[in-house]
Amino acid sequence: MSPESGTPTEIVAVGRELLTGRTVDTNSAWIAARLTDLGAFVARIVAVDDEPAAIAGEIAGARRRGAALVITTGGLGPTLDDRTLAGVAAALERRLVEHPDALAFVARRYAELAATGAVADAALNPPRRKMARLPEGAEPVDNAVGTAPGVLLRDGARALLALPGVPAEMRAVFDAALPRLRQCLGAPAHVAEREVASGSGDESVITVAVERVMDTVPGVYLKSLATAFAPDCDLRVRITARAATRTEAEALVARAAERLAAELARLR
Amino acid sequence: MSPESGTPTEIVAVGRELLTGRTVDTNSAWIAARLTDLGAFVARIVAVDDEPAAIAGEIAGARRRGAALVITTGGLGPTLDDRTLAGVAAALERRLVEHPDALAFVARRYAELAATGAVADAALNPPRRKMARLPEGAEPVDNAVGTAPGVLLRDGARALLALPGVPAEMRAVFDAALPRLRQCLGAPAHVAEREVASGSGDESVITVAVERVMDTVPGVYLKSLATAFAPDCDLRVRITARAATRTEAEALVARAAERLAAELARLR
Repeated sequence: MSPESGTPTEIVAVGRELLTGRTVDTNSAWIAARLTDLGAFVARIVAVDDEPAAIAGEIAGARRRGAALVITTGGLGPTLDDRTLAGVAAALERRLVEHPDALAFVARRYAELAATGAVADAALNPPRRKMARLPEGAEPVDNAVGTAPGVLLRDGARALLALPGVPAEMRAVFDAALPRLRQCLGAPAHVAEREVASGSGDESVITVAVERVMDTVPGVYLKSLATAFAPDCDLRVRITARAATRTEAEALVARAAERLAAELARLR
Repeated sequence: MSPESGTPTEIVAVGRELLTGRTVDTNSAWIAARLTDLGAFVARIVAVDDEPAAIAGEIAGARRRGAALVITTGGLGPTLDDRTLAGVAAALERRLVEHPDALAFVARRYAELAATGAVADAALNPPRRKMARLPEGAEPVDNAVGTAPGVLLRDGARALLALPGVPAEMRAVFDAALPRLRQCLGAPAHVAEREVASGSGDESVITVAVERVMDTVPGVYLKSLATAFAPDCDLRVRITARAATRTEAEALVARAAERLAAELARLR
């Protein structure tokens, strides 16, 4: 399975807390799993500081490398160090302009929060208003959990989606944007996956069988799941196939599993 | 606190499993936390596929950006898709050559494993031998947990450290390499950190106080820890300071905490 069979995408996670190790970047793994299940392939995940220049550099690089979709996460909130959209605007050479629908969204969310007492008032103060300043030509995406709208920017067949960094908000905005992403994700590929026991704890032996299967069953990807060595260890091998239909992907996995069992038996 | 006050470092995590979201990259967070505690700052964390060209591109980019230390994790094992050292060699324009000490290490580890029955034999077959092929001029680093040695490459004041991807091995090799990293990490900075309650659930309000503290207490970094809104939510603010001594760093944090309390009181 060549990853190139899916739409190339990249993820840019923004936030100093990722670089100090205070926060583990679970957002990128979640987004990567969703994109993979949708048949895209993620070529690269990068975490950078809350610096527009660093963010812009990563986005520009991703587009130069041919990413059809770039997803950022983090840095959309009301605080001074939420600067992802400044980075997006710089990368795509656009101005940041107040978007009427985004402002209406922010106003509605703060009105709702003020009604429940979660915030003191619904005034559109500068930090709140800031969340409605989007790169020119972008569309806001509903955020059912927080107050910062997501931001979708489509140009031709390519797109950029900026998601919040709070995990529940990130997931909600991803799902809200999904119908509008389908076009740039192309025809969905189907991925089938199976983990099998190898009967061995020695990766240096299993690798010979794994390589033979990948050489003889085109379209599948095998990976032995390395762990610590132990006499009673039974290393597992993950078999993944990607194809136009689920049936086809599953047939490839079944063929590879059968072949792997035969190769492993030969090594014993 | 400017991150530039520490030694600039970058982390390159290698492995398709990170890009499909099957594995959350906890290794990079662990390394980042260790480097931060040692007074360095991590400018960037990137995850790429098991492709020498992609790996080489990230390492070369990190060094171009001025990283004094680049740490890779993953891709040192015996399997065909363990290709990190090929990427390192390409980035630094060196050949891969069998290193006698590395080969002795691999031989010793497999002899130990064969003695306990964890592997069938201790023969130095090609996949095992591959782990001893290091970029010219590199030194192996002991791996007390697995069979692949870590790899340290020092040139002048800069260094590159390649760690395994299995977390327990990664941690063991990092600790084994640490005495040899001190030189490129420079004088250790001391980091003090405290989390305080803000008494508010509204980040768009807290941000005003946070910004005032950062403007008036140089050398500290404050971050409100965004979560979902809720009427009973009390957002926490993390205060971090970095200084030449622990006493100095703690004094900065105390001053910022006092100032923050005053600013928050003014907003009520």
